Amino acid sequence: MSLHALNNLPGVTAVPDSATQHFVFNHTMLRVKDITRSLDFYTRVLGFSLVEKRDFPDAAFSLYFLALVDKTQIPEGDAARNQWMKAIPGILELTHNYGTENDEGFAYHNGNTEPRGFGHICVSVPDIHAACARFEELGVEFQKRLADGRMKSLAFIKDPDGYWVEIIQPTPVAGA
Amino acid sequence: MSLHALNNLPGVTAVPDSATQHFVFNHTMLRVKDITRSLDFYTRVLGFSLVEKRDFPDAAFSLYFLALVDKTQIPEGDAARNQWMKAIPGILELTHNYGTENDEGFAYHNGNTEPRGFGHICVSVPDIHAACARFEELGVEFQKRLADGRMKSLAFIKDPDGYWVEIIQPTPVAGA
Repeated sequence: MSLHALNNLPGVTAVPDSATQHFVFNHTMLRVKDITRSLDFYTRVLGFSLVEKRDFPDAAFSLYFLALVDKTQIPEGDAARNQWMKAIPGILELTHNYGTENDEGFAYHNGNTEPRGFGHICVSVPDIHAACARFEELGVEFQKRLADGRMKSLAFIKDPDGYWVEIIQPTPVAGA
Repeated sequence: MSLHALNNLPGVTAVPDSATQHFVFNHTMLRVKDITRSLDFYTRVLGFSLVEKRDFPDAAFSLYFLALVDKTQIPEGDAARNQWMKAIPGILELTHNYGTENDEGFAYHNGNTEPRGFGHICVSVPDIHAACARFEELGVEFQKRLADGRMKSLAFIKDPDGYWVEIIQPTPVAGA
């Protein structure tokens, strides 16, 4: 669909209010059961960097902020890094409520069964065939492999809590 | 916490696998009941631009992709815009299943009551006092005003489906 057509759909404000200038879609927050498993998945499997942690011991939870950036982009100083990570898009916030990792029956809801709402997050990769082959080697669980279903250009993997992570490639996918 | 300490937390891979180079945390997907109301909220209130729409009439749903960027950054051509929006962070994907807007009793689950999981998305703004004053003028529903609770530096507003949108300011907040 053309940008002109998109700008004329019902509900769309085509020229944003100048009051929204420099607004940034900064982050998405997901609760996770076992923060060590989640940090392993997001840093080792997907390449995120942990850029901030905030502890709230009185309320028995901690917040972890991850960025999928080249390490050289991360400011050295703590104050500079904190300000930087609040001003860029693409931050993932993980909330860990203490003790859930020790409760065998505990599980978070991934939003894709009733009651539905949130659907997934998505990581874009330069080579989706290479990325999916690596996920297989690493033993990552798939919700939908490239070859599954009608959409041969995308895959879905699952994080340790069962949240869906869509994998796409910006350029046309060979064989799709 | 220092970057060195963050890199040494259990589970953290401090040096990302080179196979994850150029991975991008591209988008977050939320299902919405009434796409016209959601497009109005995200474009008029928060300043997003609608940059892509994909229709799946056989399966009775459409996908809407929004970016919170300066309009001048959006490529003109449709193919170029499609490739661009899959390669940048900070895209919001809204899924509209046809007809939910006409079902009075229909509601999506925002993740913050049982069963919990997804928590919120967050928009970072240059001046949080000005932004919140404007949200009040526009009649936006608040989950938490700046003055509420112990955290005086952040607010939460609600989108038309009741999803929480945190509002933060990267720099120190006056009075917080």
